[in-house]
Amino acid sequence: MQRLDRITRNIIQCFVLSLVLGGVSAGEQPVPPAPNGIALPEGYRDWPVIASSHRIDNNTLRVILGNGIAIEAARSGNTNPWPDGAILGKLVWKDTTLKAWEKAVVPGEFVHAEFMVKDVKKWATTGGWGFARWKGMDQVPYGDNAGFVQECFGCHTPVKDNDYVFTHPAQLP
Amino acid sequence: MQRLDRITRNIIQCFVLSLVLGGVSAGEQPVPPAPNGIALPEGYRDWPVIASSHRIDNNTLRVILGNGIAIEAARSGNTNPWPDGAILGKLVWKDTTLKAWEKAVVPGEFVHAEFMVKDVKKWATTGGWGFARWKGMDQVPYGDNAGFVQECFGCHTPVKDNDYVFTHPAQLP
Repeated sequence: MQRLDRITRNIIQCFVLSLVLGGVSAGEQPVPPAPNGIALPEGYRDWPVIASSHRIDNNTLRVILGNGIAIEAARSGNTNPWPDGAILGKLVWKDTTLKAWEKAVVPGEFVHAEFMVKDVKKWATTGGWGFARWKGMDQVPYGDNAGFVQECFGCHTPVKDNDYVFTHPAQLP
Repeated sequence: MQRLDRITRNIIQCFVLSLVLGGVSAGEQPVPPAPNGIALPEGYRDWPVIASSHRIDNNTLRVILGNGIAIEAARSGNTNPWPDGAILGKLVWKDTTLKAWEKAVVPGEFVHAEFMVKDVKKWATTGGWGFARWKGMDQVPYGDNAGFVQECFGCHTPVKDNDYVFTHPAQLP
Protein backbone atom coordinates (compact mmCIF):
# COMPACT_ATOMS: atom_id res chain seq x y z
CA MET A 1 0.00 0.00 0.00
CA GLN A 2 2.84 2.39 0.82
CA ARG A 3 4.24 1.85 -2.66
CA LEU A 4 0.86 2.52 -4.24
CA ASP A 5 0.47 5.65 -2.12
CA ARG A 6 3.87 6.86 -3.25
CA ILE A 7 3.06 6.19 -6.89
CA THR A 8 -0.26 8.00 -6.60
CA ARG A 9 1.39 11.02 -4.98
CA ASN A 10 4.11 11.07 -7.64
CA ILE A 11 1.52 10.96 -10.40
CA ILE A 12 -0.43 13.86 -8.89
CA GLN A 13 2.75 15.87 -8.42
CA CYS A 14 3.80 15.13 -11.99
CA PHE A 15 0.40 16.10 -13.30
CA VAL A 16 0.58 19.49 -11.59
CA LEU A 17 4.19 19.99 -12.69
CA SER A 18 3.26 19.11 -16.28
CA LEU A 19 0.54 21.74 -16.33
CA VAL A 20 2.85 24.34 -14.85
CA LEU A 21 5.86 23.62 -17.05
CA GLY A 22 3.73 23.06 -20.14
CA GLY A 23 2.49 26.59 -19.65
CA VAL A 24 5.93 28.08 -19.13
CA SER A 25 7.36 26.52 -22.26
CA ALA A 26 4.41 27.17 -24.55
CA GLY A 27 5.25 29.07 -27.71
CA GLU A 28 8.80 27.75 -28.10
CA GLN A 29 10.24 27.51 -31.60
CA PRO A 30 10.99 23.96 -32.72
CA VAL A 31 14.70 23.07 -32.42
CA PRO A 32 16.31 21.44 -35.50
CA PRO A 33 17.57 17.87 -35.08
CA ALA A 34 21.28 17.01 -34.97
CA PRO A 35 22.93 16.16 -38.35
CA ASN A 36 22.63 12.44 -37.51
CA GLY A 37 18.86 12.78 -37.09
CA ILE A 38 18.68 12.76 -33.29
CA ALA A 39 15.95 15.09 -32.06
CA LEU A 40 16.37 17.28 -29.01
CA PRO A 41 14.91 15.09 -26.23
CA GLU A 42 11.52 16.34 -25.07
CA GLY A 43 11.41 17.70 -21.53
CA TYR A 44 15.10 17.12 -20.75
CA ARG A 45 15.22 20.18 -18.47
CA ASP A 46 12.96 18.31 -16.08
CA TRP A 47 15.00 15.10 -15.91
CA PRO A 48 16.46 14.08 -12.55
CA VAL A 49 20.14 14.53 -11.76
CA ILE A 50 22.68 11.74 -12.14
CA ALA A 51 25.87 13.66 -11.32
CA SER A 52 27.70 16.97 -11.73
CA SER A 53 31.24 18.00 -12.58
CA HIS A 54 33.62 20.93 -12.72
CA ARG A 55 36.09 20.76 -15.61
CA ILE A 56 39.04 22.83 -14.48
CA ASP A 57 40.80 22.36 -17.83
CA ASN A 58 38.16 24.37 -19.71
CA ASN A 59 36.45 26.17 -16.83
CA THR A 60 33.00 24.68 -17.19
CA LEU A 61 30.42 23.42 -14.75
CA ARG A 62 28.27 20.47 -15.81
CA VAL A 63 25.15 18.75 -14.58
CA ILE A 64 24.37 15.28 -15.93
CA LEU A 65 20.69 14.34 -16.20
CA GLY A 66 18.93 11.15 -17.27
CA ASN A 67 15.63 10.09 -18.78
CA GLY A 68 13.49 7.57 -16.88
CA ILE A 69 15.36 4.52 -18.19
CA ALA A 70 18.73 6.09 -17.38
CA ILE A 71 17.63 7.12 -13.87
CA GLU A 72 16.36 3.64 -13.09
CA ALA A 73 19.66 2.18 -14.34
CA ALA A 74 21.73 4.70 -12.36
CA ARG A 75 19.86 4.09 -9.11
CA SER A 76 19.95 0.32 -9.43
CA GLY A 77 23.61 0.22 -10.46
CA ASN A 78 22.98 -1.19 -13.93
CA THR A 79 25.18 1.17 -15.91
CA ASN A 80 27.80 -1.08 -17.48
CA PRO A 81 26.34 -1.38 -19.98
CA TRP A 82 23.58 1.21 -19.78
CA PRO A 83 20.28 -0.27 -21.07
CA ASP A 84 18.83 0.44 -24.48
CA GLY A 85 16.61 3.52 -24.34
CA ALA A 86 18.74 5.29 -21.75
CA ILE A 87 19.51 8.91 -22.57
CA LEU A 88 22.14 10.90 -20.70
CA GLY A 89 21.95 14.68 -20.96
CA LYS A 90 24.70 17.08 -19.99
CA LEU A 91 24.10 20.79 -19.36
CA VAL A 92 27.30 22.83 -19.64
CA TRP A 93 28.01 26.38 -18.45
CA LYS A 94 31.15 28.53 -18.36
CA ASP A 95 32.10 28.81 -14.71
CA THR A 96 32.11 32.06 -12.80
CA THR A 97 32.38 33.21 -9.19
CA LEU A 98 29.44 33.90 -6.90
CA LYS A 99 29.76 37.51 -5.76
CA ALA A 100 28.19 36.79 -2.38
CA TRP A 101 30.57 33.87 -1.71
CA GLU A 102 33.77 34.19 -3.69
CA LYS A 103 34.91 30.64 -3.00
CA ALA A 104 31.83 29.28 -4.76
CA VAL A 105 32.20 28.51 -8.47
CA VAL A 106 28.79 28.74 -10.14
CA PRO A 107 27.24 28.52 -13.63
CA GLY A 108 27.76 31.53 -15.89
CA GLU A 109 27.02 31.64 -19.62
CA PHE A 110 25.21 28.57 -20.96
CA VAL A 111 27.48 26.71 -23.41
CA HIS A 112 25.52 23.74 -24.70
CA ALA A 113 23.34 20.73 -23.95
CA GLU A 114 24.65 17.38 -25.17
CA PHE A 115 23.21 13.90 -25.15
CA MET A 116 24.13 10.23 -25.46
CA VAL A 117 21.30 7.99 -26.65
CA LYS A 118 21.72 4.25 -26.09
CA ASP A 119 20.56 2.00 -28.93
CA VAL A 120 22.90 -0.91 -29.48
CA LYS A 121 21.62 -1.76 -32.97
CA LYS A 122 21.06 1.72 -34.34
CA TRP A 123 24.41 3.12 -33.18
CA ALA A 124 26.48 -0.06 -33.45
CA THR A 125 29.45 1.73 -35.06
CA THR A 126 29.85 4.16 -32.14
CA GLY A 127 29.70 1.84 -29.15
CA GLY A 128 25.91 1.62 -29.11
CA TRP A 129 25.58 5.34 -28.42
CA GLY A 130 24.14 8.10 -30.57
CA PHE A 131 25.67 11.49 -29.85
CA ALA A 132 24.10 14.93 -30.24
CA ARG A 133 24.74 18.47 -29.04
CA TRP A 134 22.87 21.76 -29.28
CA LYS A 135 24.91 24.92 -28.82
CA GLY A 136 24.01 27.94 -26.74
CA MET A 137 20.75 29.51 -25.78
CA ASP A 138 19.65 29.30 -29.44
CA GLN A 139 20.13 25.50 -29.40
CA VAL A 140 21.98 25.31 -32.71
CA PRO A 141 22.78 21.70 -33.71
CA TYR A 142 26.49 20.88 -33.50
CA GLY A 143 28.30 19.49 -36.56
CA ASP A 144 28.16 20.15 -40.30
CA ASN A 145 27.17 16.57 -41.14
CA ALA A 146 26.64 13.19 -39.49
CA GLY A 147 30.40 12.66 -39.35
CA PHE A 148 30.61 14.93 -36.31
CA VAL A 149 30.03 11.90 -34.10
CA GLN A 150 33.55 10.65 -34.77
CA GLU A 151 34.84 13.55 -32.71
CA CYS A 152 32.50 12.60 -29.82
CA PHE A 153 33.27 8.90 -30.09
CA GLY A 154 37.01 9.48 -30.29
CA CYS A 155 36.98 11.40 -27.03
CA HIS A 156 34.84 8.75 -25.31
CA THR A 157 36.88 5.73 -26.52
CA PRO A 158 39.30 5.86 -23.54
CA VAL A 159 36.32 5.04 -21.27
CA LYS A 160 35.23 2.04 -23.36
CA ASP A 161 35.44 -0.12 -20.21
CA ASN A 162 32.76 2.09 -18.63
CA ASP A 163 30.45 1.67 -21.65
CA TYR A 164 32.01 4.81 -23.23
CA VAL A 165 30.59 6.99 -20.45
CA PHE A 166 32.71 9.33 -18.31
CA THR A 167 29.95 9.90 -15.75
CA HIS A 168 29.63 7.75 -12.66
CA PRO A 169 26.25 8.24 -10.96
CA ALA A 170 26.69 10.32 -7.81
CA GLN A 171 25.95 8.68 -4.46
CA LEU A 172 22.41 9.49 -3.32
CA PRO A 173 20.41 8.33 -0.27
CA MET B 1 -2.86 22.27 -29.38
CA GLN B 2 0.94 22.03 -29.24
CA ARG B 3 0.80 23.00 -25.61
CA LEU B 4 -1.83 20.33 -24.90
CA ASP B 5 0.27 17.74 -26.73
CA ARG B 6 3.29 18.69 -24.65
CA ILE B 7 1.31 18.44 -21.43
CA THR B 8 -0.11 15.05 -22.43
CA ARG B 9 3.33 13.72 -23.27
CA ASN B 10 4.76 15.03 -19.99
CA ILE B 11 1.99 13.37 -18.03
CA ILE B 12 2.57 10.03 -19.75
CA GLN B 13 6.32 10.28 -19.20
CA CYS B 14 5.74 11.19 -15.55
CA PHE B 15 3.32 8.31 -15.11
CA VAL B 16 5.88 5.80 -16.40
CA LEU B 17 8.65 7.40 -14.34
CA SER B 18 6.45 7.26 -11.23
CA LEU B 19 5.87 3.56 -11.67
CA VAL B 20 9.55 2.90 -12.26
CA LEU B 21 10.87 5.03 -9.41
CA GLY B 22 8.06 4.00 -7.07
CA GLY B 23 9.25 0.46 -7.56
CA VAL B 24 12.92 1.26 -7.03
CA SER B 25 12.30 3.14 -3.80
CA ALA B 26 9.77 0.75 -2.27
CA GLY B 27 10.66 -0.55 1.14
CA GLU B 28 12.55 2.55 2.30
CA GLN B 29 12.62 3.30 6.01
CA PRO B 30 10.83 6.53 6.94
CA VAL B 31 13.24 9.44 7.54
CA PRO B 32 12.71 11.42 10.78
CA PRO B 33 11.69 15.09 10.40
CA ALA B 34 14.06 17.97 11.18
CA PRO B 35 13.94 19.31 14.80
CA ASN B 36 11.75 22.21 13.58
CA GLY B 37 9.16 19.76 12.22
CA ILE B 38 10.02 20.01 8.52
CA ALA B 39 9.61 16.64 6.83
CA LEU B 40 12.02 15.39 4.19
CA PRO B 41 10.35 16.54 0.95
CA GLU B 42 8.79 13.66 -0.95
CA GLY B 43 10.44 12.80 -4.25
CA TYR B 44 13.14 15.49 -4.08
CA ARG B 45 15.64 13.28 -5.96
CA ASP B 46 13.45 13.68 -9.02
CA TRP B 47 13.17 17.46 -8.94
CA PRO B 48 14.58 19.45 -11.87
CA VAL B 49 17.87 21.31 -11.62
CA ILE B 50 18.09 25.02 -10.82
CA ALA B 51 21.87 25.40 -10.61
CA SER B 52 25.10 23.77 -9.43
CA SER B 53 28.20 24.93 -7.59
CA HIS B 54 31.70 23.93 -6.57
CA ARG B 55 32.72 25.27 -3.16
CA ILE B 56 36.51 25.43 -3.28
CA ASP B 57 36.68 26.54 0.37
CA ASN B 58 35.34 23.21 1.66
CA ASN B 59 35.86 21.01 -1.42
CA THR B 60 32.24 20.16 -2.11
CA LEU B 61 30.16 19.89 -5.27
CA ARG B 62 26.52 20.91 -5.06
CA VAL B 63 23.43 20.59 -7.22
CA ILE B 64 20.46 22.80 -6.44
CA LEU B 65 17.01 21.39 -7.23
CA GLY B 66 13.51 22.84 -6.94
CA ASN B 67 9.96 21.62 -6.46
CA GLY B 68 7.33 22.58 -9.07
CA ILE B 69 6.66 26.02 -7.58
CA ALA B 70 10.37 26.79 -7.34
CA ILE B 71 11.05 25.64 -10.90
CA GLU B 72 8.24 27.76 -12.28
CA ALA B 73 9.60 30.75 -10.35
CA ALA B 74 13.17 30.12 -11.49
CA ARG B 75 12.24 29.78 -15.15
CA SER B 76 10.02 32.85 -15.15
CA GLY B 77 12.51 34.99 -13.20
CA ASN B 78 10.28 35.44 -10.15
CA THR B 79 12.82 34.66 -7.47
CA ASN B 80 13.12 37.86 -5.46
CA PRO B 81 11.14 37.04 -3.48
CA TRP B 82 10.60 33.36 -4.18
CA PRO B 83 6.86 32.51 -3.94
CA ASP B 84 5.26 30.77 -0.98
CA GLY B 85 5.38 27.02 -1.44
CA ALA B 86 8.75 27.08 -3.21
CA ILE B 87 11.24 24.53 -1.90
CA LEU B 88 14.91 24.62 -2.83
CA GLY B 89 16.91 21.44 -2.30
CA LYS B 90 20.68 21.20 -2.30
CA LEU B 91 22.56 17.92 -2.73
CA VAL B 92 26.14 18.11 -1.43
CA TRP B 93 29.07 15.77 -2.07
CA LYS B 94 32.76 15.87 -1.14
CA ASP B 95 34.62 16.53 -4.36
CA THR B 96 37.02 14.09 -5.91
CA THR B 97 38.86 13.62 -9.21
CA LEU B 98 37.62 11.55 -12.13
CA LYS B 99 40.29 8.93 -12.81
CA ALA B 100 39.56 8.89 -16.54
CA TRP B 101 39.85 12.69 -16.82
CA GLU B 102 41.97 14.13 -14.05
CA LYS B 103 40.95 17.72 -14.72
CA ALA B 104 37.32 16.86 -13.96
CA VAL B 105 36.17 17.37 -10.37
CA VAL B 106 33.24 15.05 -9.65
CA PRO B 107 31.01 14.01 -6.72
CA GLY B 108 32.57 11.70 -4.15
CA GLU B 109 31.08 10.85 -0.75
CA PHE B 110 27.55 12.15 -0.21
CA VAL B 111 27.56 14.76 2.58
CA HIS B 112 23.96 15.90 3.04
CA ALA B 113 20.73 17.12 1.47
CA GLU B 114 19.45 20.47 2.71
CA PHE B 115 16.31 22.44 2.00
CA MET B 116 14.79 25.91 2.21
CA VAL B 117 10.99 25.94 2.40
CA LYS B 118 9.28 29.27 1.64
CA ASP B 119 6.32 30.15 3.89
CA VAL B 120 6.26 33.82 4.78
CA LYS B 121 3.87 33.45 7.71
CA LYS B 122 5.12 30.20 9.18
CA TRP B 123 8.81 31.12 9.08
CA ALA B 124 8.47 34.87 9.61
CA THR B 125 11.36 35.03 12.09
CA THR B 126 13.87 33.55 9.61
CA GLY B 127 13.19 35.60 6.50
CA GLY B 128 10.16 33.57 5.43
CA TRP B 129 12.26 30.43 5.01
CA GLY B 130 12.20 27.17 6.94
CA PHE B 131 15.56 25.41 6.93
CA ALA B 132 16.26 21.69 7.20
CA ARG B 133 19.12 19.32 6.53
CA TRP B 134 19.56 15.54 6.56
CA LYS B 135 23.10 14.24 6.93
CA GLY B 136 24.73 11.46 4.97
CA MET B 137 23.40 8.36 3.33
CA ASP B 138 21.45 7.56 6.52
CA GLN B 139 19.61 10.92 6.29
CA VAL B 140 20.04 11.86 9.94
CA PRO B 141 18.29 15.17 10.79
CA TYR B 142 20.72 18.01 11.49
CA GLY B 143 20.47 19.93 14.79
CA ASP B 144 19.77 18.96 18.40
CA ASN B 145 16.70 21.19 18.64
CA ALA B 146 14.75 23.76 16.61
CA GLY B 147 17.38 26.40 17.43
CA PHE B 148 19.66 24.96 14.76
CA VAL B 149 18.01 27.24 12.22
CA GLN B 150 19.81 30.27 13.69
CA GLU B 151 23.03 28.85 12.30
CA CYS B 152 21.44 28.50 8.83
CA PHE B 153 19.80 31.91 8.97
CA GLY B 154 22.97 33.61 10.20
CA CYS B 155 24.92 32.33 7.22
CA HIS B 156 22.18 33.37 4.78
CA THR B 157 21.67 36.88 6.21
CA PRO B 158 24.38 38.46 4.00
CA VAL B 159 22.21 37.59 0.97
CA LYS B 160 19.08 39.19 2.42
CA ASP B 161 18.80 41.32 -0.73
CA ASN B 162 18.47 38.12 -2.77
CA ASP B 163 15.65 36.83 -0.52
CA TYR B 164 18.26 35.08 1.68
CA VAL B 165 19.17 32.74 -1.18
CA PHE B 166 22.74 32.27 -2.47
CA THR B 167 21.63 30.42 -5.59
CA HIS B 168 20.94 32.25 -8.84
CA PRO B 169 19.10 30.03 -11.33
CA ALA B 170 21.48 28.87 -14.04
CA GLN B 171 20.83 30.06 -17.60
CA LEU B 172 18.90 27.44 -19.57
CA PRO B 173 17.49 27.47 -23.12
